[in-house]
Amino acid sequence: MQHVDTLIYAGWVIPVEPDNLIYEQHAIAIQEGKILAILPNNEAVGRFSARITHRLPTHLLIPGLINTHTHAAMALLRGFADDLSLEDWLNTRIWPAEQAFVNPEFIIDGTKLAIAEMLRSGITCFNDMYFFPDTQAELIDHIGIRATIGLILLDFPTAWGKDSEDYLDKAKQVHQQFKDHPLIRLALAPHAPYTVSDTSFLRGKEVAGELNLPIHIHVHETLTEIENALNQSGQRPLARLAKLGLLSPKLMAVHATHLNQEDINLLAETGTHIIHCPESNLKLASGFCPVTKLLKEGINVALGTDGAASNDDLDLLGEMRTAALIAKGLSKDARSLPTSMALRMATLNGAKALGIDHLTGSLVPGKSADITAIEMHDIETQPIYNPLSQLVYSVGRDKVTDVWVAGKHLLKSRTLTTLDIHEIRAKTYLWRDKIAGLLKNNS
Amino acid sequence: MQHVDTLIYAGWVIPVEPDNLIYEQHAIAIQEGKILAILPNNEAVGRFSARITHRLPTHLLIPGLINTHTHAAMALLRGFADDLSLEDWLNTRIWPAEQAFVNPEFIIDGTKLAIAEMLRSGITCFNDMYFFPDTQAELIDHIGIRATIGLILLDFPTAWGKDSEDYLDKAKQVHQQFKDHPLIRLALAPHAPYTVSDTSFLRGKEVAGELNLPIHIHVHETLTEIENALNQSGQRPLARLAKLGLLSPKLMAVHATHLNQEDINLLAETGTHIIHCPESNLKLASGFCPVTKLLKEGINVALGTDGAASNDDLDLLGEMRTAALIAKGLSKDARSLPTSMALRMATLNGAKALGIDHLTGSLVPGKSADITAIEMHDIETQPIYNPLSQLVYSVGRDKVTDVWVAGKHLLKSRTLTTLDIHEIRAKTYLWRDKIAGLLKNNS
Repeated sequence: MQHVDTLIYAGWVIPVEPDNLIYEQHAIAIQEGKILAILPNNEAVGRFSARITHRLPTHLLIPGLINTHTHAAMALLRGFADDLSLEDWLNTRIWPAEQAFVNPEFIIDGTKLAIAEMLRSGITCFNDMYFFPDTQAELIDHIGIRATIGLILLDFPTAWGKDSEDYLDKAKQVHQQFKDHPLIRLALAPHAPYTVSDTSFLRGKEVAGELNLPIHIHVHETLTEIENALNQSGQRPLARLAKLGLLSPKLMAVHATHLNQEDINLLAETGTHIIHCPESNLKLASGFCPVTKLLKEGINVALGTDGAASNDDLDLLGEMRTAALIAKGLSKDARSLPTSMALRMATLNGAKALGIDHLTGSLVPGKSADITAIEMHDIETQPIYNPLSQLVYSVGRDKVTDVWVAGKHLLKSRTLTTLDIHEIRAKTYLWRDKIAGLLKNNS
Repeated sequence: MQHVDTLIYAGWVIPVEPDNLIYEQHAIAIQEGKILAILPNNEAVGRFSARITHRLPTHLLIPGLINTHTHAAMALLRGFADDLSLEDWLNTRIWPAEQAFVNPEFIIDGTKLAIAEMLRSGITCFNDMYFFPDTQAELIDHIGIRATIGLILLDFPTAWGKDSEDYLDKAKQVHQQFKDHPLIRLALAPHAPYTVSDTSFLRGKEVAGELNLPIHIHVHETLTEIENALNQSGQRPLARLAKLGLLSPKLMAVHATHLNQEDINLLAETGTHIIHCPESNLKLASGFCPVTKLLKEGINVALGTDGAASNDDLDLLGEMRTAALIAKGLSKDARSLPTSMALRMATLNGAKALGIDHLTGSLVPGKSADITAIEMHDIETQPIYNPLSQLVYSVGRDKVTDVWVAGKHLLKSRTLTTLDIHEIRAKTYLWRDKIAGLLKNNS
C-alpha cells in the first residue's frame, strides 16, 4: 500500500486528455499537490491509503476550469449598466465609476468577490487584466487560487500609472516581486490597439521578451474599433499588431470579432491564441467570433467570461454552454463545437494560451491537482446517458461542490476555506451604496 | 385588521404590470388563491393578519414563469442525442426512442420529472405538446401546477391515435373530461405544417372553433421545412396557414425562424402569437427568430424551453438570458430586448399567448397567486443596483426557493410539496437503463 495525501473516489472522471475519454468509477490519487495516478476505484482501494479520502460516487471530476479573460474586481460593477452599447457602457457608466472608485481597497474587495464566485463556479485559474497587480497578487497568494495577472500598459494616466514608461517600470517591479510564485504568473497586458501607440507596443514587446511574459490584449472587440483604426492608420488592428511583430504563440487576443479571411490567416500563421468571450460579446452587441472557422484552421481558442460588468457572471460552465450553442447557430451546423471541444476550450486550451499546459488544464499524472467536482445526482441532470453532455448542456454552477488547486481544498462542500463569504458580502453592500450614489448624481 | 390566507413580505416585488416598476419592501396578501393586495411592508403589518406569514427580506418576488412551449415527458430523453442536425436528431435518435418507449407510464414518469424541474426553476405554468393528454391531465391535476395541454393532431399513427379523425375524436373526449378544471386548459396541437394535411388542418380548425380552443403548432423551425414546403406546394408554411385561415390571435406559432418580411406582415396583421425557443433553435442549428423585429411590429412574443431533449434544461430564467443576449448580438444593438421585456416574454406574454392573461402572468390584485420567490443575497447576485438586471443576467435557477400556484405552496424552501423527488429519481434511473439499451443496440 502506497500512502498519499488525498484520494478522491468518483462516479466519473473526464480528464480532457486524451480527448473524448470518460472514466467511470475511477479515483484520483494526489501527492504533494500533484496528480499521482488515475485508476479504477477497485484498484485504488488496494493500491493507495490516504491521509484524506473523499467518496463522491455521484460526482463528476473535471480539470479545474480556466477563465482566460476577466477583470475580476469589476465584480463590484455587476449589473451597474445594462442594455447599453459598448461606447455608452464605457463612457457613461464604467469609466466614470472606475475613475471615481478604483483604488487598492476596491481591488481587494472586488477581487475577493470575484474569486469567491469563481471558486464556487469551479474555476481554479483565471487570467486577469486590471489595475494594481501588486495588490491582486498579494491577495491571490493568500487565497491560493491559480492566476495570471496582467501588467497593464496604457498611453494615458490612471490610478495605477501615469504613462507607458511608468506602467512598464511598475510591470518590472511587480514581476520582480512575484516571478517565482508557484501559483501566480504574470503577463504584459497592453489594453487594446486603440489605447496603446506603436512606440508603446514596441517597448512593451521588448519588456515582455526580456521577462519572458505572455501578452494579453483586447483586439477586434467591435466593428467601430476596426473602422476607426482603418480611418486613422489605414490598417486593421490585427494587421497592425502583425506588422509590429506582436502576433505569436505568446499573444492572447481577446474577443476577435469581425474577422476576415486575412485576419484568420494571420492568426493561424503566427500561432496566436484567441480568447472567446461569447456572453460579453452578445451582451454588448460587439459582434461574433467565428469560432468554428478558427478551430478548423487549427487555431487555439480558449474561453473567458470577461468582467462581471458585461456578462454578468463569472460562470465558465454557462460560458461553455453559450459558446457551444452560439457556434451551432452561427455556423448553421449542429455538429459545430461539440461538448468535448467546449470543455477543452474551458480547460486545456486556456492552459495552452497561458503557456501553463505542462502544469494544468487536464487530469493527467504529473500535472497539478487542479480539480473541480460536480454533483450529478440532482433531477436537473438526470437521466445521464453521457456525463459530458450533462456537463455542457444542463449542469448549473450550483452543482459544483468541491474545488482543489494544487491539491489544496479551496471549496469544500460549497464552503470556501480561504475566504470569508460573510465579510465579502458585507463589504460588497458598502461598495454598492457608494457606487449607486454615482447613478443618482448622474441622473 | 383583515384576515387573509397568506402574507408574503419581500425585499422586492416586480409585478410586470405596469412595465418597469419595482416595488421595494412590499408584501403580497393572498386570499382564496388570488392576489388581494400588494402594498408596502409597513402598511401590510397594520392592515392584514394572516394564517401563514412568510418573511423574505432578501428575496425578489416575480410572477410565476410561464414556459410556453415544451414536451414535458421528453425530460427522460435529456442528453440522449447531442450535436446532431434536427433531421439526424429526429430520425436516428428521438423518433426511434419514442416509438420504442412512449406509453402512459413513460408520460407519467417523464412529466413528473419535468414538472419537478420546472417548479424548482420557478415555472408555474407550461404549455405542452405530446401524447396521452388524458394521462398528463390527471397527473397535473394531482400536482397542482397550471398547464395548457396540447391535444395532438397528426396524419400518421402513434401510440396515441391512428389518423386525424381519431386524434380529433380523442381531443374531444379529453376536452369533455377536463374542460372545467381550474388549472388545466386545453389547446389543439396540430404538430407542424409538414405532418398535417390541408384537410386535417381545416377539420382541426373546425373542432378548435367548436370547443373554443387555442391552437399550438411548430412552424418555420428550419430552412429545410420551408424549402420542402416550397417544393411541394409552392407556398411557405406560414402563407399556407394564412390561406387555411389559421393565423389569428388564437394561434401560437412556435419557433418562427427564417421569417421574411411577408411572413412578419402576416403575423402582425393576424395577431398571431410567436413562441420563441432560443436555446433549442441554437442547439439544433435551426435558425434565428427575429425577435427584435417582431416586437417592433407589435407582435406578442413569448418564451419556451422546448423539450429537454433539445435544450437540455427546462429553465426559463436561462432562456430569458439567452433570448436577451442573442437578440442583442443579432440586431447589433445592445439596447435590444432589455431586461423588462425579457421578463415580460417569460410571464405576461406567455399568458397572453395562452389566452389566460386575465388569470395570471403578472402580479396584480385579482389575478391568481402564481408567484415565484428568488433569493438574492448570495454573492453571485451581489451587488444589487437593480434586481431586474440580476434576475435576467446573473440569477441561476438554484436561487428559486419558493413557488405558489393559485396560492398553493408547491415549492417550499426548495422542497416540492406535491411530488416525491426520490421516487422521481428512482424511476428516472430505471428509464435511463432501458433507453440507453437502444443506443447500444444501434451502435
